[in-house]
Amino acid sequence: MSDFNLADHPHRRYNPLSGEWVQVSPHRAKRPWQGQVEKVCETNRPTHDASCYLCPGNTRANGKQNPNYEHTFSFVNDFAALQPDIPSGNVNEDSLFIAKSERGICKVICFSPRHDLTIPEMDLPSIKKVVDLWVEEYDILGKLDFISYVQIFENKGSVMGCSNPHPHGQIWAQESIPDEPKKKGEQLLDYFNKHKKTLLQDYLAKELEKNERILFENDHFVGLIPFWAIWPFEAMIISKRPVANLLGFTEEERASLADAYKTLTTLYDNLFEVSFPYSAGIHQAPTDNQSHPEWHFHMVFYPPLLRSATVKKFMVGYEMLANPQRDITPEQAAQTLRSLDLEHYRTRR
Amino acid sequence: MSDFNLADHPHRRYNPLSGEWVQVSPHRAKRPWQGQVEKVCETNRPTHDASCYLCPGNTRANGKQNPNYEHTFSFVNDFAALQPDIPSGNVNEDSLFIAKSERGICKVICFSPRHDLTIPEMDLPSIKKVVDLWVEEYDILGKLDFISYVQIFENKGSVMGCSNPHPHGQIWAQESIPDEPKKKGEQLLDYFNKHKKTLLQDYLAKELEKNERILFENDHFVGLIPFWAIWPFEAMIISKRPVANLLGFTEEERASLADAYKTLTTLYDNLFEVSFPYSAGIHQAPTDNQSHPEWHFHMVFYPPLLRSATVKKFMVGYEMLANPQRDITPEQAAQTLRSLDLEHYRTRR
Ligand SMILES: O=P(O)(O)O[C@H]1O[C@H](CO)[C@@H](O)[C@H](O)[C@H]1O
Ligand SMILES: O=P(O)(O)O[C@H]1O[C@H](CO)[C@@H](O)[C@H](O)[C@H]1O
Repeated sequence: MSDFNLADHPHRRYNPLSGEWVQVSPHRAKRPWQGQVEKVCETNRPTHDASCYLCPGNTRANGKQNPNYEHTFSFVNDFAALQPDIPSGNVNEDSLFIAKSERGICKVICFSPRHDLTIPEMDLPSIKKVVDLWVEEYDILGKLDFISYVQIFENKGSVMGCSNPHPHGQIWAQESIPDEPKKKGEQLLDYFNKHKKTLLQDYLAKELEKNERILFENDHFVGLIPFWAIWPFEAMIISKRPVANLLGFTEEERASLADAYKTLTTLYDNLFEVSFPYSAGIHQAPTDNQSHPEWHFHMVFYPPLLRSATVKKFMVGYEMLANPQRDITPEQAAQTLRSLDLEHYRTRR
Repeated sequence: MSDFNLADHPHRRYNPLSGEWVQVSPHRAKRPWQGQVEKVCETNRPTHDASCYLCPGNTRANGKQNPNYEHTFSFVNDFAALQPDIPSGNVNEDSLFIAKSERGICKVICFSPRHDLTIPEMDLPSIKKVVDLWVEEYDILGKLDFISYVQIFENKGSVMGCSNPHPHGQIWAQESIPDEPKKKGEQLLDYFNKHKKTLLQDYLAKELEKNERILFENDHFVGLIPFWAIWPFEAMIISKRPVANLLGFTEEERASLADAYKTLTTLYDNLFEVSFPYSAGIHQAPTDNQSHPEWHFHMVFYPPLLRSATVKKFMVGYEMLANPQRDITPEQAAQTLRSLDLEHYRTRR
């Protein structure tokens, strides 16, 4: 029998950040698809939409009016999943019924007054302003004594549950550290205690050496497909310096992060020449008043599309009950993405 | 301030089976929805479809012909994600790049020769035959020396990535124990060692006493919404006896399981009077040649619909990056489901 290799044979890969596995089935990409196809919405949107509750000057459902903001704008979510003022309480019956009250704050961040833009179509100074707002919000929310963790994220595209195409993201800040960053924190701490360096510092150095999954690199950040990626074109932006959270970046690094954000999302849009849907977000140190030298800032992107603008990967059945599973390998995904033009397809036309 | 209560205030609940949490936001159900809506496909399908690769007598893409089966039919998936004959190998570079070859077998199970039926519309003797086939497959696959775990599941509906409406399920059997059953197994073992009873035995007794989340009960099984449910109408079917796997059931219990399967899926269909999509599957003991008194057979159902036949819950952004989150409480979901007719809406018409 021929030798085992990652490009041809079904295998599992381990994610050292979460302690979990992904099933990789490289041979399965040839499977025909007769299932659900997604709608492509490539309509040209107006720069201002009178019915959009995120556009400047418009009135939201609860009667509040948006200011005539010129760059970014953040406000407390009108339908917040978390609230700051609730009675606190605990339930524990025989360790089988365990619940606790959870305080928090949910905010919406408008990236631009322009209704028609998305991150890859915005200019660098405007994206830098989004990064600056993230820094400000992480700082303010993180300093509240009842907030232990600040999750900054973006849902892009209706297929990702985003109900408004106006460029925006969200922040959910809360009392507890949620499970995903908690798992990561434990794995990162474990590694840091052993090696006196962050896990991502060592990982990044090796990825740069191998140059198999690297998508791009600028002065302060690297974009890559992680070895353990779950989604077909899942990617990560990692800071070259092991900085624990947004507050540790210099002005130059912030601009560099804006550049990396634009570069990755441009590659995404260019892949199928469509506004590429994803959920993205930042994983960084908790705001629990502890020092976190083990944490290393990174941004993750989970895009659902698999083969085309209309065929996505379904994380169902086996994936929900047993284990995430992917068809194309992370190496194939990286090769595909890095062969693409760095200029956005809409400006090239 | 009023007292904390689970029906009104944002809180987290702990899942003792997985060791993970869910964020519950009871007040958020009023959020308006302007996002993606799903298509409803309530077409009347023919009893036999010449273009369906699962119907009896038809030829599949790889040239193989299906027998003229009268009840159920299983075969090895033509596009299997796992394969039995691959070279074995291991990768481990500095604990950062870890991979291993993974052998396995993927099978497809046709539930009925009738193209137009689904489980809730099938009669009990026919569903009992599906249960019998699960038992047989679990037995045969589990006995193979390289198979440590057999995952039986069903993806129903195009929104769940199911590409063929012919009633069918799948089985993925493999060398390793995948992450979800592995986590559950550890939690179950822990509990069993402490209490000399299975966790689900104690949990079920308390749920029956409380009668707040119970959907139905027959001689040998109970259907309920677990206290820690993630999906809006997530449910579980639990055996009353603490049986580790399908092989432990009597003939009578198998018939009772078929009945519970039909009852739950009927309630689901009746909820929005639509063929209700879900991923469902069985969690039971691994087939790793160890004894597993800690395991307690149960079937889980993860349905995505939230408010109507066309509006689903999106597990995106915050959920992917931080923690699963739900809007209506498990108690509200249970109350809604158990108020429904036990006869299928299509036969009532
Ligand atoms: O095997 P199928 O039905 O073609 O595929 C479906 O179920 C599989 C197992 O849950 C998933 O990996 C696929 O993403 C999904 O589309
Ligand atoms: O807050 P939105 O954009 O209305 O809602 C979207 O993002 C939330 C956070 O990821 C999810 O809980 C919702 O399911 C999704 O539809």
